[in-house]
Amino acid sequence: MAHLIQDVRITPVAFRDPPLLNTVGVHEPFALRAIVEVVTDSGLYGLGESYGDAKHLTRLRTAAAELTGVDVWHTQEIARRVRGSLARGQDSGAGGHGMSGMVTGSSTADRVLSPFEVACLDIQGKAIGRPVSDLLGGAVRDRVDYSAYLFYKWAGHPGAEPDEHGAALDPDGLVTQARRMVDEYGFTAIKLKGGVFPPDEEIAAVQALAKEFPDHPLRLDPNGAWSVATSITVAEELDGVLEYLEDPTTGIAGMARVARESPMPLATNMAVVAFEHLRPAVEEDAVQVILSDHHFWGGLRRSQSLANTCDTFGLSLSMHSNSHLGISLAAMTHLAAATPNLTYACDTHWPWKAAADDVIVPGALRFEGGAVPVPTGPGLGVELDRDALARLHEQFLACGITERDDTGYYRRTHPDFDPTAPRW
Amino acid sequence: MAHLIQDVRITPVAFRDPPLLNTVGVHEPFALRAIVEVVTDSGLYGLGESYGDAKHLTRLRTAAAELTGVDVWHTQEIARRVRGSLARGQDSGAGGHGMSGMVTGSSTADRVLSPFEVACLDIQGKAIGRPVSDLLGGAVRDRVDYSAYLFYKWAGHPGAEPDEHGAALDPDGLVTQARRMVDEYGFTAIKLKGGVFPPDEEIAAVQALAKEFPDHPLRLDPNGAWSVATSITVAEELDGVLEYLEDPTTGIAGMARVARESPMPLATNMAVVAFEHLRPAVEEDAVQVILSDHHFWGGLRRSQSLANTCDTFGLSLSMHSNSHLGISLAAMTHLAAATPNLTYACDTHWPWKAAADDVIVPGALRFEGGAVPVPTGPGLGVELDRDALARLHEQFLACGITERDDTGYYRRTHPDFDPTAPRW
Ligand SMILES: [Mg+2]
Ligand SMILES: [Mg+2]
Repeated sequence: MAHLIQDVRITPVAFRDPPLLNTVGVHEPFALRAIVEVVTDSGLYGLGESYGDAKHLTRLRTAAAELTGVDVWHTQEIARRVRGSLARGQDSGAGGHGMSGMVTGSSTADRVLSPFEVACLDIQGKAIGRPVSDLLGGAVRDRVDYSAYLFYKWAGHPGAEPDEHGAALDPDGLVTQARRMVDEYGFTAIKLKGGVFPPDEEIAAVQALAKEFPDHPLRLDPNGAWSVATSITVAEELDGVLEYLEDPTTGIAGMARVARESPMPLATNMAVVAFEHLRPAVEEDAVQVILSDHHFWGGLRRSQSLANTCDTFGLSLSMHSNSHLGISLAAMTHLAAATPNLTYACDTHWPWKAAADDVIVPGALRFEGGAVPVPTGPGLGVELDRDALARLHEQFLACGITERDDTGYYRRTHPDFDPTAPRW
Repeated sequence: MAHLIQDVRITPVAFRDPPLLNTVGVHEPFALRAIVEVVTDSGLYGLGESYGDAKHLTRLRTAAAELTGVDVWHTQEIARRVRGSLARGQDSGAGGHGMSGMVTGSSTADRVLSPFEVACLDIQGKAIGRPVSDLLGGAVRDRVDYSAYLFYKWAGHPGAEPDEHGAALDPDGLVTQARRMVDEYGFTAIKLKGGVFPPDEEIAAVQALAKEFPDHPLRLDPNGAWSVATSITVAEELDGVLEYLEDPTTGIAGMARVARESPMPLATNMAVVAFEHLRPAVEEDAVQVILSDHHFWGGLRRSQSLANTCDTFGLSLSMHSNSHLGISLAAMTHLAAATPNLTYACDTHWPWKAAADDVIVPGALRFEGGAVPVPTGPGLGVELDRDALARLHEQFLACGITERDDTGYYRRTHPDFDPTAPRW
């Protein structure tokens, strides 16, 4: 039976986000996402989730208009049409990536393709009564480990009451944050988003975490905030403490210089974010761990291909996260479950999202011992809650945010803030 | 509905093969293959085809015994069990590759996995009423181009009557062979298996083909018969005549030295035959075209992953062939159809096989204009002819061949023959 695409609906949504600090600023009160519904002439629908920035929404809508009539099993034809829609619009690929200026314009076509591919796999799975993991060769694990993702954090958004998470602006604050998160979710690995304070303070924070959680592998990610020299110094000081150091500095050449001196592996979701970056990264031995992310590597099948390429070239694999909702968590979990060499715990912003802020029917996803059991129902295993979708869309319209701008938001209270890397 | 593997049948078969010459000898009167039938508890069966050499048959049978109860959608679990079966047997990986000593023992696990993966995809497709190409992201072309595969050839096997193809031992003989093959099948590209006569004779043959077929891209494949210096000389003499030169010399290091001087791209199915060879090949820029082959790259999904890796690293892609039957032709066609960057015509030994010698019900596959239309029925689109399977199995038992041995067969008439490379 054919399942031809009859309609594609793209709904921007916003959900509450705490004031999480990073090297380019701070999270705004709402994070944006685009919810993609692909509907077939056979009456099935599939879900995808992507960035909600205005320029990306425009690209998604332009591409979506070209997908009518395509069979949901023909994802390569969908990729061709997506690329065509961008080429015809003479899209430079700049902007709209939902990552606040921290990445380049590479892989724009893969970013646009991703939610459509995921939605088509969701439909395929529903059509044949199989979980998406089966369409990826089958789950090799029945639960996927995630890491506790710590952030330096203000007590609350400027002018608002403190939120339930509290402030975290020093080692003690982070240890308290980690303890709460580990107790609640059971995480067995911990990541700290750094690049916020001078490196000595962040080194002290990691050391405090190591003391409190001696059995938890630790990671530090300053998002390229440091010079090569600073990166090497930090790497040496945290020798034996970090399982990997993530994007200490920017660019393949810079990472390669750090890698030659670093005692621990370097990971990246900034220097290598598109297939075209792999050859130079391999040639310079610039990174040892790729943080894959199906949202910018072209969906689940292309992310699996990335995984195989990593295996082939001796690179390890972990998984990157942006602020996301349940559709993405389901897709990440299916992908990770079906990727044998994804042996690190995956990142997720999940604990920072209010439980009430989601677009899926509650109950499909849960954390147990820091891991999410892989959904076994058809497709992604999550269903759209249309009332919740409408509510989060209203929230999008009301919040007035159309582009993620961590820097601009930070400057409202710190007008002289300059995020230019390297900051240290 | 689950489709659990209930039984796996492995049947060695033999089919008549003409005396085709190559640099290590000559094809014996029969070529061997293994026909793999995977049967599920739901009453479906799927087909795979692989090498028929004794050692490979043993590996297939050992692996098959461990697959009972696995869901046919869980091909990664199947891969894990195949690797486990080889590891437990402390298999060194040597021998049994059906390629007459022309490749190393790398990728043994992928060779054993391949026919099981193909059979599982065949069952998946049958279960959901979809062609295998749809399980690979959908066909991006509805017909797959193949090349005319020319061989130097004796008139007939020693002691037997001349066969219908006639002799081809000089440029005129090859031009006649090419003309017949192009007229019958419509091929639009031509490959010559070389490494048989001194390079000057083979250069003359290619030049004669170029004169007779000025619009057909040409390839020459001496299977590593030449030294680096000879390879460079031949490459220079055939500048502007060959679309690629295939395995002029052996090994990644040797190919890299030739590549630095060669005016045309170098292709390989000898220097790079396993995922572990890709990194050194890329680092040395040793080859420009990978001849993929799902029989030794671990099946269709892993071959697609290879294709994506080639795209990522700027390598082109073509497809290798051994003597094969219709199950393999169907699998090759689905894979090629669903591989966007497979832009060269694929190799096939098909014209050398007697039409009556096959194990599939006739009519599913045909050549039109040098191309095979992609089957659109469920699965591979071919059905097992059990009478024919029994007949070809009897032929296997009767022929007495258990290991491909082109060199030994050649030495029966040329006792002093020494195939050691480089021959020139
Ligand atoms: Mg990062
Ligand atoms: Mg070859």
